[in-house]
Amino acid sequence: MAPSANTAPRKPVAQVRYELLTLGDELLLGLTANTHLTFIGQQLGRRGVTLERNVTTTDDAATIARQFRESWARADVVITTGGLGPTCDDRTREVVAEVLGQKLVFDPAIEQAITDRFASFGRKMTPNNLKQAYKFDRGEVIPNAHGTAPGLWVEQDGKVLAMLPGPPNEMQPMLVNQVLPRLAQLGLLLDREAYVQFRTAGVGESALEAKLQPIFDRQGDALSIAFCAHQGMVDCRLSSPSGRLSLAELDAVAHECGRLLGEDLTCYGHDTLAKIVSELLRAQEKRLALVETATGGLLANAFTELGGACKFFAGGVVCCSNDAHMQLLDVPECLLQQHGAVSDECAVAMATGAAETLGADYALAVTGFGGETMGPGGNPIGTIFVALHAPHGVWSKKLSYPGPRPTVKVRAVNAALDWLRRELLRVAHGAVTPTRRTGVIQ
Amino acid sequence: MAPSANTAPRKPVAQVRYELLTLGDELLLGLTANTHLTFIGQQLGRRGVTLERNVTTTDDAATIARQFRESWARADVVITTGGLGPTCDDRTREVVAEVLGQKLVFDPAIEQAITDRFASFGRKMTPNNLKQAYKFDRGEVIPNAHGTAPGLWVEQDGKVLAMLPGPPNEMQPMLVNQVLPRLAQLGLLLDREAYVQFRTAGVGESALEAKLQPIFDRQGDALSIAFCAHQGMVDCRLSSPSGRLSLAELDAVAHECGRLLGEDLTCYGHDTLAKIVSELLRAQEKRLALVETATGGLLANAFTELGGACKFFAGGVVCCSNDAHMQLLDVPECLLQQHGAVSDECAVAMATGAAETLGADYALAVTGFGGETMGPGGNPIGTIFVALHAPHGVWSKKLSYPGPRPTVKVRAVNAALDWLRRELLRVAHGAVTPTRRTGVIQ
Repeated sequence: MAPSANTAPRKPVAQVRYELLTLGDELLLGLTANTHLTFIGQQLGRRGVTLERNVTTTDDAATIARQFRESWARADVVITTGGLGPTCDDRTREVVAEVLGQKLVFDPAIEQAITDRFASFGRKMTPNNLKQAYKFDRGEVIPNAHGTAPGLWVEQDGKVLAMLPGPPNEMQPMLVNQVLPRLAQLGLLLDREAYVQFRTAGVGESALEAKLQPIFDRQGDALSIAFCAHQGMVDCRLSSPSGRLSLAELDAVAHECGRLLGEDLTCYGHDTLAKIVSELLRAQEKRLALVETATGGLLANAFTELGGACKFFAGGVVCCSNDAHMQLLDVPECLLQQHGAVSDECAVAMATGAAETLGADYALAVTGFGGETMGPGGNPIGTIFVALHAPHGVWSKKLSYPGPRPTVKVRAVNAALDWLRRELLRVAHGAVTPTRRTGVIQ
Repeated sequence: MAPSANTAPRKPVAQVRYELLTLGDELLLGLTANTHLTFIGQQLGRRGVTLERNVTTTDDAATIARQFRESWARADVVITTGGLGPTCDDRTREVVAEVLGQKLVFDPAIEQAITDRFASFGRKMTPNNLKQAYKFDRGEVIPNAHGTAPGLWVEQDGKVLAMLPGPPNEMQPMLVNQVLPRLAQLGLLLDREAYVQFRTAGVGESALEAKLQPIFDRQGDALSIAFCAHQGMVDCRLSSPSGRLSLAELDAVAHECGRLLGEDLTCYGHDTLAKIVSELLRAQEKRLALVETATGGLLANAFTELGGACKFFAGGVVCCSNDAHMQLLDVPECLLQQHGAVSDECAVAMATGAAETLGADYALAVTGFGGETMGPGGNPIGTIFVALHAPHGVWSKKLSYPGPRPTVKVRAVNAALDWLRRELLRVAHGAVTPTRRTGVIQ
């Protein structure tokens, strides 16, 4: 079942036209977020391809036919998601077969895979599932390791069609493990990362650009630079669309930027702040405690998303009332009465209380707008205090972010993580004094 | 500036063709999730309109022109998002003006609004912002209460165009407060909810359908029913596309379903489980504590997303190590050693410990797969134990969900919330005995 490379268009990867058709009324009605675009767009982007278009249409057969015909005419590669399941609104397979002039043929191997899957759950296959056992007569089957509906693969008219199931936990591994390697083999995307990325925190996009421009200028127009800012962090991607700079040369430019940026560089590649912090903690064999009001559990969630969090995560406390602060973390009541829960003093007491109660070396506290009501899209929430407790000191910082609550929460999480990251780096580099200090950082 | 109703097409709302163009390379590269489709699709859906299509394209001027021309030819209403800002990749305004044969004219009122906005932050406007002060010569301005780029409104060729800014916190209130009322006034969407929704939990989609079918059957084809399942909950939407059933009649059908469903009904309308639980707690003047390993902060976050959580939320503990359990919640070490942290016994001890430590009446504990590594799209995680502590008893329950970690977390959060909801309902109805009980629910 080797891909027939002779059907592949012979143009540079960046000029291959990709379209993504995401099918389903539930997407258009906003009942399900279109995570397919995000995931597939990201995966293709890393391999040097920018999706030319994503079209989301209804499950209606005539609509699918019209849209598929149009996209098939325009694009070199069409990827579809959804509509391959067993129910009556799953029409993609039949509609596309007709447009392509293909016959659907029953595949006993698919039937067996579906039957086996049901059996592994101790269930019996219902007859409507057999619909999923049909494939194109001049196409191939992409096995589904995580569900019943297999994907379908067609090479026709010098184009490629990959039809993927709708559930993300089925679609995503199928794309990464089966579809991308086949596309790379056909020369329709790169078989390696298309760019070198480094990530930064705590510096604005325009300041970053100004700082790095002299390095970029030396490369002239061989170098292409893209910035992407998100909630207190800015990523920078270096590529060489003309191919004049090799990956090793791009890597050298990235590292030159990294040396200039110092602590503002968080990593080369794609790691999250939580991942970076967790690796620093594990390398230093230190444990972290968290206490949060303003971020309501999101900070803890950033770490518990990672595998192996038990190795360094001593626990977190989420609270929004003065009671919880006091009882769990021994924050003095007089302090709360004098300064309030949203204050430098309280943030410091919370961080220290969390570290001591949970037996952690480091602790982050984030306090702010406990439970005030705010309308959708409303005004800035106001002020957040972050405190960092370390073996060698404890400090607090006042932050102020405009924007709606979900944005403020993510920015506060990122700011807290970035602060801890910098402190752990300084410790790793022997750049902190062992004397215990406290302070408010302006 | 009254909308000129005479340009509106005179067809039933459900037949008005809506297209959404979401513009931006960052969407196609998966750097930003397309939340616009989700939000706008939802808002239109509630007013009786299903988006016919959503197209996401690049920022490239020729591409925008080509796509806008096509969409404008097909649709009655086109909504665009993005590309209205001050930078050089914001080209939507100019491109669309050319396609529509409109002139862009400078509007001193917009300039003033932008200048005022900068001044309110103590900043000076940079000249590139003036680009945003241009409007169509035969169009109107939609003021932006939360940013610099105003929206633009055009009625032309018997069609309507609404161009909205890209940032969600600017776009969303503009759509809800300004665009939807104008579209309703033109008869292009309903000026009320299009359907009656009720939400259920703990019952599968097909079982729900089977149970309610006799009620639906009595309405014949005047009634249209749509189910939407998400992570342990199923919503049911009743509408009458022919208009033969009034909203009051649909409401009566919904309530008949609700009576039949009993506790499986969570609410009429759109409330979340966390909202429903929080209202029950507030009505009964009870306080809730949380302790979670498996859900890693997501359960706490469900409540702290709500305004006024301090009224009932006594605090939460997130942990993944045995240490944190013991120290914060007085879970006996011998119990952990005998049964392990993922057990009925430990879940019960965690819930009781959280209630006692935090002085809460109710507590939920969720324990499972602390920090084990799992690959993307990997296999089922396994088993989760949920415990519910109430003034009148404490129980635990074993759950088992297939799927990747994020799905398991959301399902566990929903299962825990739904259990507490049912218990609070029973208390409200006087259906619990005052004797303190404990037990494992199979």
